[in-house]
Amino acid sequence: MFDRRRKLWGWGFEDQQLPFEEIEQAARGAREHLGFEPAEVERPPRLEDVELPAPRIEPPSSLAEICTSEPYDRITHAYGKAYRDLVRALRGRFDHPPDVVARPGDEREVEQILEWCADAGAAAIPFGGGTSVVGGVEPRVPQSAAVTIDLGRLDRVLEVDSVSRAARIQAGATGPALEEQLKQHGLTLRHYPQSFEYSTLGGWIATRAGGHFATLQTHVDDFVESVRALTPSGAWESRRLPGSGAGPSPDRMLIGSEGILGVITEAWVRVQEAPRFKESAAVLFDSFSAGAAALRALTQTRLYPTNCRLLDPGEAALTGAAPDGKALLVLGFEGHDDVSVQLGQALALCSDAGGRAREKRGESEGAWRDAFLQAPYLRDTLIAGGILAETFETAITWDRFDSFVADVRERAAAALGPEGRITVRITHAYPDGAAPYFTVLAPARRGSELEQWDEVKAAASEAIEAAGGTITHHHAVGRDHRPWYDRQRPDRFADALRAAKAAVDPHGILNPGVLIDP
Amino acid sequence: MFDRRRKLWGWGFEDQQLPFEEIEQAARGAREHLGFEPAEVERPPRLEDVELPAPRIEPPSSLAEICTSEPYDRITHAYGKAYRDLVRALRGRFDHPPDVVARPGDEREVEQILEWCADAGAAAIPFGGGTSVVGGVEPRVPQSAAVTIDLGRLDRVLEVDSVSRAARIQAGATGPALEEQLKQHGLTLRHYPQSFEYSTLGGWIATRAGGHFATLQTHVDDFVESVRALTPSGAWESRRLPGSGAGPSPDRMLIGSEGILGVITEAWVRVQEAPRFKESAAVLFDSFSAGAAALRALTQTRLYPTNCRLLDPGEAALTGAAPDGKALLVLGFEGHDDVSVQLGQALALCSDAGGRAREKRGESEGAWRDAFLQAPYLRDTLIAGGILAETFETAITWDRFDSFVADVRERAAAALGPEGRITVRITHAYPDGAAPYFTVLAPARRGSELEQWDEVKAAASEAIEAAGGTITHHHAVGRDHRPWYDRQRPDRFADALRAAKAAVDPHGILNPGVLIDP
Repeated sequence: MFDRRRKLWGWGFEDQQLPFEEIEQAARGAREHLGFEPAEVERPPRLEDVELPAPRIEPPSSLAEICTSEPYDRITHAYGKAYRDLVRALRGRFDHPPDVVARPGDEREVEQILEWCADAGAAAIPFGGGTSVVGGVEPRVPQSAAVTIDLGRLDRVLEVDSVSRAARIQAGATGPALEEQLKQHGLTLRHYPQSFEYSTLGGWIATRAGGHFATLQTHVDDFVESVRALTPSGAWESRRLPGSGAGPSPDRMLIGSEGILGVITEAWVRVQEAPRFKESAAVLFDSFSAGAAALRALTQTRLYPTNCRLLDPGEAALTGAAPDGKALLVLGFEGHDDVSVQLGQALALCSDAGGRAREKRGESEGAWRDAFLQAPYLRDTLIAGGILAETFETAITWDRFDSFVADVRERAAAALGPEGRITVRITHAYPDGAAPYFTVLAPARRGSELEQWDEVKAAASEAIEAAGGTITHHHAVGRDHRPWYDRQRPDRFADALRAAKAAVDPHGILNPGVLIDP
Repeated sequence: MFDRRRKLWGWGFEDQQLPFEEIEQAARGAREHLGFEPAEVERPPRLEDVELPAPRIEPPSSLAEICTSEPYDRITHAYGKAYRDLVRALRGRFDHPPDVVARPGDEREVEQILEWCADAGAAAIPFGGGTSVVGGVEPRVPQSAAVTIDLGRLDRVLEVDSVSRAARIQAGATGPALEEQLKQHGLTLRHYPQSFEYSTLGGWIATRAGGHFATLQTHVDDFVESVRALTPSGAWESRRLPGSGAGPSPDRMLIGSEGILGVITEAWVRVQEAPRFKESAAVLFDSFSAGAAALRALTQTRLYPTNCRLLDPGEAALTGAAPDGKALLVLGFEGHDDVSVQLGQALALCSDAGGRAREKRGESEGAWRDAFLQAPYLRDTLIAGGILAETFETAITWDRFDSFVADVRERAAAALGPEGRITVRITHAYPDGAAPYFTVLAPARRGSELEQWDEVKAAASEAIEAAGGTITHHHAVGRDHRPWYDRQRPDRFADALRAAKAAVDPHGILNPGVLIDP
């Protein structure tokens, strides 16, 4: 996979770049489908048109071979994949490109890079797939220089324990890379975030990524058996344990640490045999609220569907998944033995709650997943076509669910204006609540897209924060979520985390500004 | 419940104290059953015979009403319930009694006690049910005085959210107290550690207690929706969230913190309706290893039995649960809909693995649980009768399981000598491993019981540590597990935890010596 280069702009590899005419046509079609006025479609930036400031730091000769300050590399490591990122990049604007991109091939090189950064007073930014949507990898740092540590060369499955169903995997392995290697052992991780193709195991762990399972193992957290990270003060490695009660979990402190405590280099994760039985169905409800009530009942039964995604009527209609005005619940069960009884029980429960199962079973989930993974490609087209296209997500307990969703939607809609659309789905469900995921689509205000989006995002985030939700269920905090995260997390926890960081990263070089201030 | 006093010695309330003649008879019978020579049965200590050093500290007048230095209170808060504790207490030996026992009735009083301790340079030891088996509440502290904070008065269910199935409960509520209050709302927590009758929600959270469920929600950790603790620097309270990805979990840092970061005062926990369907069965295997292999296959299927406890032939025979030489797997499923299909699938899987289901279904689990909760009472009798009776537990991945158990058993047995017995069961099971729980029974060396046990414990712990296990799966670290925990936990994590503690407890007053050194 090494010889494929990521696109300079947008999602995917260079060889997947569509001809401009196709982008233009697709963008026009999308605008029409959404009922937006026609607008000019912009061309992706060309490398030769981008102006970057000169790098402010140079690697020592011992690291020169694994470091680069080539514009392509600096540009492709300057942002994640948020709407803010894509819009700026589309205009060739790169606010804080890293000065150097380092690609370590082993842990010793990671250590050497960290030592160099500490000596040089440079920020060190761990970089997996670069798919952050919260400014997590953008070198907006107080330091006078920034080195991005791209872990892409650490992409191997190092060890497989078929008995315990666990594998030791390097942090830089992308979803496809690790699945391909696991497949040779008849195993799979089954963690499929939307960024699956490009994001990495280390990135998932650092950001508590949400994945395949809508219940139980909702976050990668639950698959982590042990983690190894390199802090500027040395290695932090936990034991492989199926469960433990020995003090606060050392893994849970690294999981979600977003690169501020150490560079995650590898982890033992729980894998499995691919399930032999899968059953799925789709159920229509008269409203999102009715579907949510059914889903709530379902999560409180110990039935644990692997998939239970609920689309509101707007989202279901937009994607053509359901007739007008109906909310759609996509239900899936999987197991190593027949799961049709569980699906039957779940469907009976949905029926009691006013749902109507669609006749055809079995296809919904696969189609859903394909569309799910295609969405980021489509978004590039929308953005080039002048469409504001972004998502945000949260979680809330069931008692407040309906009013919370209504309130967040209303405030975001007010900020968005009458032309925009806001739809919502539930991506993950718990006995005590659920994670609503909002999609925003609107004609972009050309030239002031960032302001336009920032207003919507702020309105939504204020509503989320004020109503007791979380600023993120599985997109991480990064730099962009800081104002609301700072109000959400317990102050004493922030004190503790800040002290913990200072203990292992005394010079404060690791991903500064993410989660906490130095 | 306030008017019942706990026994001066041993498990239970004063009104449950058996006449000495009954203890004597039971102890003799137990020795005979175990094949040990007859021995004298000791009488529990009497209050008037215990000599305590004078208290070294006196509460300020503002706290006098909720503080006591009465011998009964100091004695009953001097130890947990480990074998080491019971033996010392039986002889009237109290090495480090607290100088003062404080019983706050609200959070303001907890804060005042912490302020007083900080001013006076006294250690502050949070105390729930006092059932620690690892020296977690014994005031072995560097400070010149110790104040034990008994949270027993904070025993209310404060709020119930029936929609989200969650309840806000004070930390000092015992198992029966919180279940009784939840029952009025038709709800239950279903967290049943062996100490259920006396231990408290706060204690469970502080120690990551293991409970009812043998799979999935194995520890109280999984029921915690949010926690509130008072640190010497102020309150640490997280939001009620069904799931979140915003930074490292603030709850997971308090869960298992064993009182070193703050005094947990309340928590929102996930509760449920009592399951309407239960199915259980018992399966015999020719060996512990064969049973473990079946259990491993079962944990890797997404079937999730609520109970799957495997007894080795020694333990099964000792408790009369199975014919000689057979290992016994007790299997249980529960749900809000029929679970017989799942039990059938599990039994088929056991059968494939060489297991033979016993004919009678349905009774095993209830009988098991009664015996389980009675065990601590029985242990008092054994100890009075001169029998070393103690347990220890760990967890290990499946790939190493058989050799690990054999090794630990062998080394402990070598230290124990030929007269002793070591049996093992699996209490909790995971897709990637399991938690073996060892029981040790031997004729006590009268007068040197502590040395006798310490040798066995050290031999077992060395074996556990060396072979990659955890020093505790659900009994916590406390003070007694420190030598092995210190080798187990990542050094950088210990640095981080130490710094975190210093940030919120700058005078180092909270439960010093537990988990980390100041």
